[in-house]
Amino acid sequence: MSNSPVQTAVDGPLRSLRVLELGHFIAAPFCTRLLADQGADVIKVEPPGGDPARDWGRKVNGHSVMWSMHNRNKRCVTLDLKDEAERPKVEALIRWADVLVENFRPGQLERWNLGVDALHAWNPRLIVARISGYGQDGPYRDRASFGAVGEAFGGVRYLTGYPQGVTDLPPVRTGVSLGDDVAALYAAMGVLAAVHERDVLGTGKGRVIDVALYEGVFSLLEGALPEYASCDVVRRPAGSAMPTSVPSDTYKATDGWLVIAGNSDAIYRRLCGIIGRPDMAADARLATNAGRLAHRAEVDAAIAAWVATMPAAEAERILNDQAVPATRAFTVADCVADPHYQARGMVVDVDDPLIGPTRHAGVVPRFDESGPTGRIAWPGPAVGQHNDEIFTEILAGRPAPRKANP
Amino acid sequence: MSNSPVQTAVDGPLRSLRVLELGHFIAAPFCTRLLADQGADVIKVEPPGGDPARDWGRKVNGHSVMWSMHNRNKRCVTLDLKDEAERPKVEALIRWADVLVENFRPGQLERWNLGVDALHAWNPRLIVARISGYGQDGPYRDRASFGAVGEAFGGVRYLTGYPQGVTDLPPVRTGVSLGDDVAALYAAMGVLAAVHERDVLGTGKGRVIDVALYEGVFSLLEGALPEYASCDVVRRPAGSAMPTSVPSDTYKATDGWLVIAGNSDAIYRRLCGIIGRPDMAADARLATNAGRLAHRAEVDAAIAAWVATMPAAEAERILNDQAVPATRAFTVADCVADPHYQARGMVVDVDDPLIGPTRHAGVVPRFDESGPTGRIAWPGPAVGQHNDEIFTEILAGRPAPRKANP
Repeated sequence: MSNSPVQTAVDGPLRSLRVLELGHFIAAPFCTRLLADQGADVIKVEPPGGDPARDWGRKVNGHSVMWSMHNRNKRCVTLDLKDEAERPKVEALIRWADVLVENFRPGQLERWNLGVDALHAWNPRLIVARISGYGQDGPYRDRASFGAVGEAFGGVRYLTGYPQGVTDLPPVRTGVSLGDDVAALYAAMGVLAAVHERDVLGTGKGRVIDVALYEGVFSLLEGALPEYASCDVVRRPAGSAMPTSVPSDTYKATDGWLVIAGNSDAIYRRLCGIIGRPDMAADARLATNAGRLAHRAEVDAAIAAWVATMPAAEAERILNDQAVPATRAFTVADCVADPHYQARGMVVDVDDPLIGPTRHAGVVPRFDESGPTGRIAWPGPAVGQHNDEIFTEILAGRPAPRKANP
Repeated sequence: MSNSPVQTAVDGPLRSLRVLELGHFIAAPFCTRLLADQGADVIKVEPPGGDPARDWGRKVNGHSVMWSMHNRNKRCVTLDLKDEAERPKVEALIRWADVLVENFRPGQLERWNLGVDALHAWNPRLIVARISGYGQDGPYRDRASFGAVGEAFGGVRYLTGYPQGVTDLPPVRTGVSLGDDVAALYAAMGVLAAVHERDVLGTGKGRVIDVALYEGVFSLLEGALPEYASCDVVRRPAGSAMPTSVPSDTYKATDGWLVIAGNSDAIYRRLCGIIGRPDMAADARLATNAGRLAHRAEVDAAIAAWVATMPAAEAERILNDQAVPATRAFTVADCVADPHYQARGMVVDVDDPLIGPTRHAGVVPRFDESGPTGRIAWPGPAVGQHNDEIFTEILAGRPAPRKANP
């Protein structure tokens, strides 16, 4: 399936960056996974019972399959952060790290006497990324939150539905943990910006980064806020269609959905030829996007009539052959079967000691081969798998270098 | 509305990082906006007629309102990259830059004799981030693409719908340019990882980063790929509900949608008390998530019956008062009116010379005040606004430092 099987050494542009994760569930672990994939040395701290995410999703041999990918390339240790007797280990880890990433409720680290001042007393160079639902201050900082709530409070969930009157169904999830994932990406970017300031500009100081789930998704709303402020327009749900461009929508083929993005004048004219409607290519009313917006129903009906006559894969092939952007809505099975995924190394065979042979998504983004590139060195470890290796070294003041996956 | 009005100096942890954008539409411009927000000095190159995105969305005084936010904190110059006579300007900009971010179709830079080898001959330290629909290689690299196609090919669009049989409506857009935005975040992270390698590890070499829209969204699919590989399970659309947790869904109040994430045993029991169903809190069948998954319809019906009796804001208040994560699905108008957004500086007054007073989303993520923080220094510039300032300085071999917004 792939020419990139599991390797025995972590490498990549972030080799040498030391990251400590005090995280659970999705956001902080995904942030550190992104850094680990690019070569950072990540130590993940779990309570003795393990991160609750070890129970998520399907299992094989009693182990979560998602875990294999979600926590790959990390080393896992267990530690009871409430237990004062464990403090020497905590201190050693904090002194070891360049970066700490955490996603407890605001105030939780402080209740364990691990607030930013305490951390910086041990290690003033420590960069601290704090991910939470509502952020570290503001009136709602103490509110419980989850990704779904962050997405809805941040303004995205309102938009994942149909215009009023089309259906009584609620707006949908995006099918992924969008709020957590976007926060994780922002945290990874913020961490590396702070590394730049500390090590390239040479301030030597560890900054604190405050990532709120809702603010990540809110920042993706593009023109919605300035258009509300300047034009008094509230962005409304638009279903499957692009509200500002025609044609760009999802159409029903005989066996599934086809997405067509025909949103330029030239693409539109090619599309009209393909669907046997040269009259629409010549129609002056429809020559520009503004005209097509005014006649959306007419344009979409003509496209829908053509798509409805054939399987989605056939329409996809015909359209792409004439440079009209189009694709089936891929299932994960379609992704695995697709030659482009295979050629790009996006589906990687992994032999996981906990669950056996499985597959992971490749490392994103891809770096060129002029230097070390990130890779899948090992899958998500067992609970406490690296306790001996790490605590022995770190408590002795040694750097605890990574070995091949034990 | 905010205590963070427009400032007259760009600052932040990335001050001193020089970024050249050869971009258009969403992905590359959003990537460089993220870097500019954190203090990077971004020069955006447009063709003489301007980036086509200047025509997107609502306008005031003939200027796009979205542009104000989408290209803030940058300096804008015009340059015809096809024109050999302009080559000295191009070369001066490449020599000036630390980083280049581009999102042309693969092969386009090469057709202009601006392939990576040519760029590195001028500036071997240049980091090059290339964003495209399908990536720089593989069988589909030459296919036309747009965000909607990347999202569908990457496996997310299939999931933004309802299970088969619930509705004939197609899966929805997420309401934002998800594929472009996620690619932009990955590119920003990749750029800063390459800066780390070049300047902290000291390789001195500019790496090339290949970001494909579809790979960004594919990487968010969590357990979907390993679960397909290990358990032969294809992830299917699940509508508004979290497929692995009960209760976590969207419910209809008298005036709009309410999202409740009651997905822990303790939260579930508190929720049962609030909705007047202590019997459900005591029901052994429903004590664990596994049990609630098996009786999802029963649990959801009881919650829905309670939510249906009152306005969403009232249910939101009652639930949050008892630490049950819940929120209305916020419109952008709700965001602007909310005290938490105001306290966090997420809605910022901006006086834009092109469109007048407007508002922008704040800088994400937030840095602490122990050093310079990113801010909104000026809104998206006019076409060619900084031509004289930049070309005069750069062609003379001077660094063209940023001034206050002219």
